[in-house]
Amino acid sequence: MADSRTTSRTPSRTTSQTSSWTAAWELLLPTAAAPPRKRGRTLQSALREAVRSGRIAAGTRLPSSRELAADLGVSRGLVTDAYEQLTAEGYLNSSRGSGTWVSGAARATAAREHRRPAADAPGTGFLPGTPDLSLFPRAAWSAAHRRVLARLPHSGLGYPDPRGLPELRAAVAGLLTRRRGVVADPESVVICSGVAQAMTLLGFTLAGLGHRAVAVEDPGSPENTALLSAAGLTAVPVPLDAEGTSPAALAASGARAAQLTPCHQFPSGLAYSARRRLELLEWARAVDGLLLEDDYDGDFRYDRAPVGALQGLDPARVAYAGSVSKSLAPGLRLGWLVVPEHLVDLVVERKRTMDLGNPALDQALLAEFIERGDYDRQLRRCQRAYRERRDALVAALAEHFPGTEVTGIAAGLHIIARLPRRYGPEARFLERAAEAGVALRPLADFARRPAATPAHSPDENAEGDGDAGGAGQVRLVMGYAHLSPARIARAVALIAEARAPGLPGTPR
Amino acid sequence: MADSRTTSRTPSRTTSQTSSWTAAWELLLPTAAAPPRKRGRTLQSALREAVRSGRIAAGTRLPSSRELAADLGVSRGLVTDAYEQLTAEGYLNSSRGSGTWVSGAARATAAREHRRPAADAPGTGFLPGTPDLSLFPRAAWSAAHRRVLARLPHSGLGYPDPRGLPELRAAVAGLLTRRRGVVADPESVVICSGVAQAMTLLGFTLAGLGHRAVAVEDPGSPENTALLSAAGLTAVPVPLDAEGTSPAALAASGARAAQLTPCHQFPSGLAYSARRRLELLEWARAVDGLLLEDDYDGDFRYDRAPVGALQGLDPARVAYAGSVSKSLAPGLRLGWLVVPEHLVDLVVERKRTMDLGNPALDQALLAEFIERGDYDRQLRRCQRAYRERRDALVAALAEHFPGTEVTGIAAGLHIIARLPRRYGPEARFLERAAEAGVALRPLADFARRPAATPAHSPDENAEGDGDAGGAGQVRLVMGYAHLSPARIARAVALIAEARAPGLPGTPR
Repeated sequence: MADSRTTSRTPSRTTSQTSSWTAAWELLLPTAAAPPRKRGRTLQSALREAVRSGRIAAGTRLPSSRELAADLGVSRGLVTDAYEQLTAEGYLNSSRGSGTWVSGAARATAAREHRRPAADAPGTGFLPGTPDLSLFPRAAWSAAHRRVLARLPHSGLGYPDPRGLPELRAAVAGLLTRRRGVVADPESVVICSGVAQAMTLLGFTLAGLGHRAVAVEDPGSPENTALLSAAGLTAVPVPLDAEGTSPAALAASGARAAQLTPCHQFPSGLAYSARRRLELLEWARAVDGLLLEDDYDGDFRYDRAPVGALQGLDPARVAYAGSVSKSLAPGLRLGWLVVPEHLVDLVVERKRTMDLGNPALDQALLAEFIERGDYDRQLRRCQRAYRERRDALVAALAEHFPGTEVTGIAAGLHIIARLPRRYGPEARFLERAAEAGVALRPLADFARRPAATPAHSPDENAEGDGDAGGAGQVRLVMGYAHLSPARIARAVALIAEARAPGLPGTPR
Repeated sequence: MADSRTTSRTPSRTTSQTSSWTAAWELLLPTAAAPPRKRGRTLQSALREAVRSGRIAAGTRLPSSRELAADLGVSRGLVTDAYEQLTAEGYLNSSRGSGTWVSGAARATAAREHRRPAADAPGTGFLPGTPDLSLFPRAAWSAAHRRVLARLPHSGLGYPDPRGLPELRAAVAGLLTRRRGVVADPESVVICSGVAQAMTLLGFTLAGLGHRAVAVEDPGSPENTALLSAAGLTAVPVPLDAEGTSPAALAASGARAAQLTPCHQFPSGLAYSARRRLELLEWARAVDGLLLEDDYDGDFRYDRAPVGALQGLDPARVAYAGSVSKSLAPGLRLGWLVVPEHLVDLVVERKRTMDLGNPALDQALLAEFIERGDYDRQLRRCQRAYRERRDALVAALAEHFPGTEVTGIAAGLHIIARLPRRYGPEARFLERAAEAGVALRPLADFARRPAATPAHSPDENAEGDGDAGGAGQVRLVMGYAHLSPARIARAVALIAEARAPGLPGTPR
């Protein structure tokens, strides 16, 4: 997979980007400004540093020496010398006739220096949680930035309203009402830095109201435990059955608040049944509690109309959180929270002491993006791309691992694959896949620690596999959104080959 | 002052901005796309909405009907009709020969809808804390955004490193080493959303280490109390003497950490003496404590070399915080924290659970801005502008209020003015100024509540005024950065006239 990873990090030289990208060489390698005698050394060290720091990604093909010399305004000999020097040092690879690339050798250094979490590097496998960052609409985003800066009054650059820019709150309220069936008006929307911050804000707010614990789904995202704990709350794992979080277990948990992913449970992929939704709302009313709805991928639903948000059923008992992390990019750190009216001021005051509010320009930009219809366009584009990838993954599994049960496919950016027992044991399977360069995440990673009380005992998942230990059957949470259909097919084939060494098609 | 306030909110039509601003009319008033029969109504409602929402600020002069018709691609009659209609409705003002403006009537609505804090609206007076937002380098910032989006690898749009983008941490470490005498390497820098978040992060970190209280300066920023309290800490006010926070009072406070503004104390403007700096560091070592240095305006020093940061004297005992809020814009929500090595991981983990890290694009943009020298250019530009404004304010006070003692003038964006007693009592003076439309902030606003223990008793400020009650002598904290020299002179004249009604030059 190393080759495909590096390919994906190479900035694409599409028509619209060529001129800016060309201009960027001057910025990366500011050589002409150096005194003539020092230009050679300046160019070499700038190029070395750009590769080491990861600014020019491994796998990037460099311009020809003639082109780069012209861009930088230096003699071609200087560029040739620099290329030769850095090739000798291992930073670059050259081969006659096919040009010069940034080698893989420097990649390890760059990755270490950048301390990026592994899930952040696309193409390393089927790890869930990352959208396809190459779908980010760079041109439209850049144009929106320019327009916003041109029209924003000066006061728009001052301290932001901690609850969020009014235009953005209005745009988000409209968007959520229209797309997710959320009951929202601008006064109940709080702009925040994504679902993680939304959960932290709610956690502190609940702690301030005297809550001590919040129920969380089991299996579920391990991150929630850390977020709630930072707010001084205990996360109490509550098992799921086939319809969603079990109301009996919830009642026994002692918590008066529960964090849920009812539209597409993470990681199992199930959608809470209508009956279960009502039961959970009844519970919340009975304990004077709150449901925290994490709608992390609600925008992506492939085979029928999206499941509306739980919040729409009782806006006084549900706080709803979402973000642009899956639809645009996690790096934007922009999300929203729709809170019951009696909690708005508490949440906003917490937001204020946390960071005074989200960056004003980013907010104006997203408001404009939504208002102009660019955001809907982007969602349609992602939806098409992700449906195609999901289909590719399901097909590849059927081809290479016949008998695999695939669930949670109707929505979101990942599926659950339960392989027939003959492919086990799981530990061995994962090891072989890793050797072939394909990272996989077992479902067992998302199970909470079994607790001692009956309410938290490892209840059998009603979806049908009685292999709770995970030692035998292979059960995977497979994220597919960041991989092209061709790479999905190749990666699944690689795993299959890795399982059967010696057969034709032995892994590289 | 109403007129000057609205003037300042009007986007300036400088040469470089004219084309973008012109283009913006099409975006604000998208009329040509409507069916011909509906264009008139579309234009009217778009214009009304733009005024009501504050997108076109009160006081903005609209283009002539001929110009706007050309920009929008509609007939001139439609524009004339729209102007007449909205003038009749009170949104616009027209007068023959001098054009059409957005009226003040809609301003109140817009302000209410936006819920902007009063200090955020520039031009309402000498309130401290706001830089001149019209100095924000829009063109350079926009260009940097375009370049960054053109070169950033896709992975740069993923989840950020919670400690900050490596390039930005390196750029900030270099900047602070060079400009502020901070001892910083990229590993000790944490990027955050501004000084407020820096203090919140440190507050939570200290609370996690068992601290219960943090000493704060008296007088000082009231905001710190709220930030520390949100982190579960008590802010203990500690009086200043002529050299800075009193070590004896600090020792008696019971706290093992102290938040300080040693380079330009807020609001008094004094710079801590060299001896006091050493005494405070000794105290921190003796109690195994920490000093929290808020370098909120350290970049602006007018008459001699900047006072280096306290942190440089003992990086293991001082956490240093700064931001771009005064140099670029508070709306960017970008700042930094330099922390002692043993605290880095704790602070970063807190940052992670708070928001997962600052927006990636904004960080890449600031890194590029610093690396290219644009940030230094911006600081020089602000420095020039602010020195001129300070001089204008000092001169105007000398002219209209002879005998006024002005202190804290060597640095920062505000001064302290102590008027001769004949101008008192203060309450009456403030009232008259407010009637003339000039908002003023008395020094007394920044005094902490007198506490019962001797350490916190209202110690006489050693700078020479024995009027601690504030009822008599007029003592003002005057922010000047957001006002042009001409407006500064006019506003001071207005206050002087307001004091003496009936004399020539009665206030309007």
